[in-house]
Amino acid sequence: MRIVGVSSISAAVLGASGFSGGELVRLLDTHPSIEVTYVGANRSVGKRLAEVHPHLAPMAAGGLPLKALDPDAVSGAADVVFTAMPHGSSARLAPALLGSGSIVIDLAGDFRLPAEAYPRWYGFEHPEPAWLDEAIYGLPELFGDRLPGAKLVANPGCFPTPVILGCAPLLEAGLIQPGTIFVDGKTGLSGAGRGPSEATSFAATDGSIRPYRIPGHQHTPEMERGLELAAGTAPAIVFAPHLVPTVRGVLTTCFAPLRSDTTTEDLLRCLADVYRDRPFVRVLAPGEMADAKRTRGTNLVELQAVADPRSGTAVVIGALDNLVKGAAGQAIQNANLVLGLPEETGLSRSAVVP
Amino acid sequence: MRIVGVSSISAAVLGASGFSGGELVRLLDTHPSIEVTYVGANRSVGKRLAEVHPHLAPMAAGGLPLKALDPDAVSGAADVVFTAMPHGSSARLAPALLGSGSIVIDLAGDFRLPAEAYPRWYGFEHPEPAWLDEAIYGLPELFGDRLPGAKLVANPGCFPTPVILGCAPLLEAGLIQPGTIFVDGKTGLSGAGRGPSEATSFAATDGSIRPYRIPGHQHTPEMERGLELAAGTAPAIVFAPHLVPTVRGVLTTCFAPLRSDTTTEDLLRCLADVYRDRPFVRVLAPGEMADAKRTRGTNLVELQAVADPRSGTAVVIGALDNLVKGAAGQAIQNANLVLGLPEETGLSRSAVVP
Amino acid sequence: MRIVGVSSISAAVLGASGFSGGELVRLLDTHPSIEVTYVGANRSVGKRLAEVHPHLAPMAAGGLPLKALDPDAVSGAADVVFTAMPHGSSARLAPALLGSGSIVIDLAGDFRLPAEAYPRWYGFEHPEPAWLDEAIYGLPELFGDRLPGAKLVANPGCFPTPVILGCAPLLEAGLIQPGTIFVDGKTGLSGAGRGPSEATSFAATDGSIRPYRIPGHQHTPEMERGLELAAGTAPAIVFAPHLVPTVRGVLTTCFAPLRSDTTTEDLLRCLADVYRDRPFVRVLAPGEMADAKRTRGTNLVELQAVADPRSGTAVVIGALDNLVKGAAGQAIQNANLVLGLPEETGLSRSAVVP
Amino acid sequence: MRIVGVSSISAAVLGASGFSGGELVRLLDTHPSIEVTYVGANRSVGKRLAEVHPHLAPMAAGGLPLKALDPDAVSGAADVVFTAMPHGSSARLAPALLGSGSIVIDLAGDFRLPAEAYPRWYGFEHPEPAWLDEAIYGLPELFGDRLPGAKLVANPGCFPTPVILGCAPLLEAGLIQPGTIFVDGKTGLSGAGRGPSEATSFAATDGSIRPYRIPGHQHTPEMERGLELAAGTAPAIVFAPHLVPTVRGVLTTCFAPLRSDTTTEDLLRCLADVYRDRPFVRVLAPGEMADAKRTRGTNLVELQAVADPRSGTAVVIGALDNLVKGAAGQAIQNANLVLGLPEETGLSRSAVVP
Repeated sequence: MRIVGVSSISAAVLGASGFSGGELVRLLDTHPSIEVTYVGANRSVGKRLAEVHPHLAPMAAGGLPLKALDPDAVSGAADVVFTAMPHGSSARLAPALLGSGSIVIDLAGDFRLPAEAYPRWYGFEHPEPAWLDEAIYGLPELFGDRLPGAKLVANPGCFPTPVILGCAPLLEAGLIQPGTIFVDGKTGLSGAGRGPSEATSFAATDGSIRPYRIPGHQHTPEMERGLELAAGTAPAIVFAPHLVPTVRGVLTTCFAPLRSDTTTEDLLRCLADVYRDRPFVRVLAPGEMADAKRTRGTNLVELQAVADPRSGTAVVIGALDNLVKGAAGQAIQNANLVLGLPEETGLSRSAVVP
Repeated sequence: MRIVGVSSISAAVLGASGFSGGELVRLLDTHPSIEVTYVGANRSVGKRLAEVHPHLAPMAAGGLPLKALDPDAVSGAADVVFTAMPHGSSARLAPALLGSGSIVIDLAGDFRLPAEAYPRWYGFEHPEPAWLDEAIYGLPELFGDRLPGAKLVANPGCFPTPVILGCAPLLEAGLIQPGTIFVDGKTGLSGAGRGPSEATSFAATDGSIRPYRIPGHQHTPEMERGLELAAGTAPAIVFAPHLVPTVRGVLTTCFAPLRSDTTTEDLLRCLADVYRDRPFVRVLAPGEMADAKRTRGTNLVELQAVADPRSGTAVVIGALDNLVKGAAGQAIQNANLVLGLPEETGLSRSAVVP
Repeated sequence: MRIVGVSSISAAVLGASGFSGGELVRLLDTHPSIEVTYVGANRSVGKRLAEVHPHLAPMAAGGLPLKALDPDAVSGAADVVFTAMPHGSSARLAPALLGSGSIVIDLAGDFRLPAEAYPRWYGFEHPEPAWLDEAIYGLPELFGDRLPGAKLVANPGCFPTPVILGCAPLLEAGLIQPGTIFVDGKTGLSGAGRGPSEATSFAATDGSIRPYRIPGHQHTPEMERGLELAAGTAPAIVFAPHLVPTVRGVLTTCFAPLRSDTTTEDLLRCLADVYRDRPFVRVLAPGEMADAKRTRGTNLVELQAVADPRSGTAVVIGALDNLVKGAAGQAIQNANLVLGLPEETGLSRSAVVP
Repeated sequence: MRIVGVSSISAAVLGASGFSGGELVRLLDTHPSIEVTYVGANRSVGKRLAEVHPHLAPMAAGGLPLKALDPDAVSGAADVVFTAMPHGSSARLAPALLGSGSIVIDLAGDFRLPAEAYPRWYGFEHPEPAWLDEAIYGLPELFGDRLPGAKLVANPGCFPTPVILGCAPLLEAGLIQPGTIFVDGKTGLSGAGRGPSEATSFAATDGSIRPYRIPGHQHTPEMERGLELAAGTAPAIVFAPHLVPTVRGVLTTCFAPLRSDTTTEDLLRCLADVYRDRPFVRVLAPGEMADAKRTRGTNLVELQAVADPRSGTAVVIGALDNLVKGAAGQAIQNANLVLGLPEETGLSRSAVVP
């Protein structure tokens, strides 16, 4: 790895033709210390990046040619490698990149779970289980102290991020109790990836509200593991994701067992204390309600919690932009911390509203 | 009441300037036995109905003048009265209508709960508690045998309809166990009514995913009561509704305690048996997923259920068009059964897709 | 051909897996005299129709198996054949169907233009030019008298329908003058067909306003020819279509040279006179503005015209549902007239609003 | 006026509770040289800005209290005043602000036209006609040389900006000829302002395509005047605006008389030459089509032109974000040039796509 902290750190974005890859390039365009020098993809090799992402045409990196996913070339060109390919690709590619001294921030799910979970939840046997122990689960607000100098970061999934940020402090404080947490997730269509299909067409999606992949979504064990890492106790998660007709935005609604005599104010005070100085977490006031729209284009997450003493339930809500705090933005936040930069470098809190 | 079963039953629609009122007129336009003869509203009295609902211009009732909510005039003009005003109005108006011999189908929440529930959940003391015992809770698939000859029907809410239809048979069969059912609801904007506000503007809504009124939504006790009426056992309901950017459509996701050793096939077989001959309930095949879009403009409800043995949870999903099966369509279905007509008379199963 | 006018006329829908094909089946489900007996497609042969169009599951024809496009089998099974395949297919298939005695209503562009126009505007040499003279251009409000007993109907395109209906009477009356008419078209995404592509994905479309195929759209010569057929004079058409983020709906805005001293009232009176008794044309009042939404799911077209004396321009606006009046509904209207049925049979004026 | 060019120029945003006002604050939050020190409004005085614009909560200016529109207080607090109130307010307020030495950038239409045009197009007699001659029409790409040191800038309207930028160079070069230009405009709903109404509700807008205010839209004479200022020749403009279901985005389609023998390449070369070094104008390649979505959140305008030799027409298309290049962004670009700063300071070219 090259020396960190100087003015220009070089970065590769692999999987640059997808949504998360495009968002990485878009966000890094204004990053003062990281410069994209390599864009890799499986398809469209040889095209300029702006040909596959026309909105990147005004950016310097828009003129870069898409190159193959060759680890030696990548490591030669980049201090930091963001891997944003489909699940299963980075598990095979990362070891070579790491071996060449690159830092790897993986946006796929390839380093988020223990080895034994992959066959069931991802449908493949993990090819490099030894590296799983090296990976830091990159939720900076909870595990930021493990990031400086890390070599391999498992960037969290879009649904687990608000669930863990919202529930872990309450679990740790004992305000919600161990047991089962029921998680209802809603996501915009960019979460389904860029490849066209009838199900993700405008004609099929506009006017649609659809659940999917219940109960086997791969973010289920990630939520359980992230909560255990953060709070020391592992609730069982039941997770039901849904597609709703918007492009960006995730909102998660968690139903968790409330400690008796706990009020909404108790829940919110706990969250506000934990995230007091964190630039990207907004704990809402009582009665205010989260809105995925207010996070669009930003690295913000909004958290709300409500106590329902009638049923003994805490309803914990989180909202974010799945391509920023749920993917590319959090990856950059992780890279900043790995590299010793302020975590907010190059990241926005300015939502494009309305 | 006039003689039932003849070719033309006269109907009044009160609250005709709202969304449910407009939908009642739209649907009744092709009803072979019911004719709208009176349209009443608090505002716009004197205008023709098509002036406040331009899409009704091609219909006969579009030319009717909006009249005041005078019970004598209404009862004089109509055998059946559909009350679709804001909550609290029909509680005061219905007794006079009933006293004059009209049949009342109430689309508000004014006759759905026991008297003691109104102050807490609706914010008013019920003015006519004696009539609450007379009201039939109009979920035709479960309580249809109580409808013939009824005088006062409490038309169910848009969220309770799919929750009760989906969970009651499973509860009764013991496939889901008494306890707490966590209900996550998603609704389109027509559920918020027609009155303009910033929160329901296009600029605020497009791109938005927003929870609201947690935990005090008035459909909570209605779900509990409807399940108790149907299944004889009353689970506790925790209900979290959300607005998603579409106009029509409700989708509810229920997390309920699963009886051990119960499979997805068991759940679906139970539902399919109960609703075998019901024209408006579609129990989906395993793996198929409900979609609110496929119910648009129809009186259909789609039901899906999935067993998650890992956590011991049944996930029960229902979808419908909140203005049809969730309001005006179900009201007509109820009226049909009260009047001795086939329940599907004048109602559609033909969704405007895509 | 079988005897026409009896209670059940059999129909085939070819191209049944597409949007127009699905809409034909949906609409014919409630047609009292026409029954779908054959559904044909190039793909998915052997599947039941409801497998490729789940919203058709509640309909009788939803259970029909998709069959190959074999002309003998089709003609043996159907009195009327609706061809809704991609452009170029029906030109080859129709002659055999016609030869076997079937009536053909073609929803593609294969019989709308003179032979010499096909290479330029459709990119193919017409294989059966002799049949072009036999085809009736099926705009029932203008050419309805040619339809009874016709064998081959060229069903108009979605953009030409409102343009010709709006401008032809004004041209014929001399209220707009020969010259150039500039036509700006806006369409929802269902107009782009069902095949998935990145450009028609929800992620690419939501928030997008996009022109396309300027100046070579194949509806350009169709507008010119339809106006000439109807008004006896052929203006030059300049046509610029655009995709806007909705599923159904076309709105066309025509800028035409106004005869001096002509007022908005003159324009509207002319249109109102011509369409006085036509069930599907709504000529709006001065100041009212057309809205594609008010036509959704219906066979209606809304027309508006405004005189701008400052510039000597008539602005003529039309709106319709591209899958109904712009395709399947108009095809059924044509079939009704061919078969001697009332033109509105089986067609709706009840828009699903909001 | 205070000394210009130092690190911190103070700014007031009047009309801060509206969409353009909110966007000004959002964009200025990252401006290195201009700081918002005063936010004024007619309503909500006393509230903090973030209470009326929750998405501004993470920004410094989000904590500012909304103050009354008192010219002395405003001028005392701000070097530059952005007036973003409804039409008619700044005409009355600006002279006092100017008299106190503030620079005024007016986002309303109050200083865009000659005095005699106001009664007809805006419905009021201009109260301060003498100031109209002082105002610079702030289209930086065409009139940027008049901006340094200006005192009063009339910031252009959202529709005139792409029309003038697209057509003026072609007119001046003689590639399009004097005569009539037909302009079809499409805009998202934020162009209709923030005040709630039924017409701008989500329920009324989703699925809708609607023309409005034809032929009297006040941007008509602004297009004519801007073209005359830039090209020395004044075509007649016929303008038909439409609302389409998106929040941000304007796309204009102009039909103009083409000089014979002019090709698409001629048109594009002319535009490319004029805007070669301008950071916010993207002239597209032949065949590429403009998309309002690619400008969202940015100060970019996309231009496309197509020659149709068949009809002798140039079709000139422009797209932008109506709240940025069509309002707040262009206002900041103007302020930058007035103040001697690089025009792109604080402005983005990074569109939030998808």
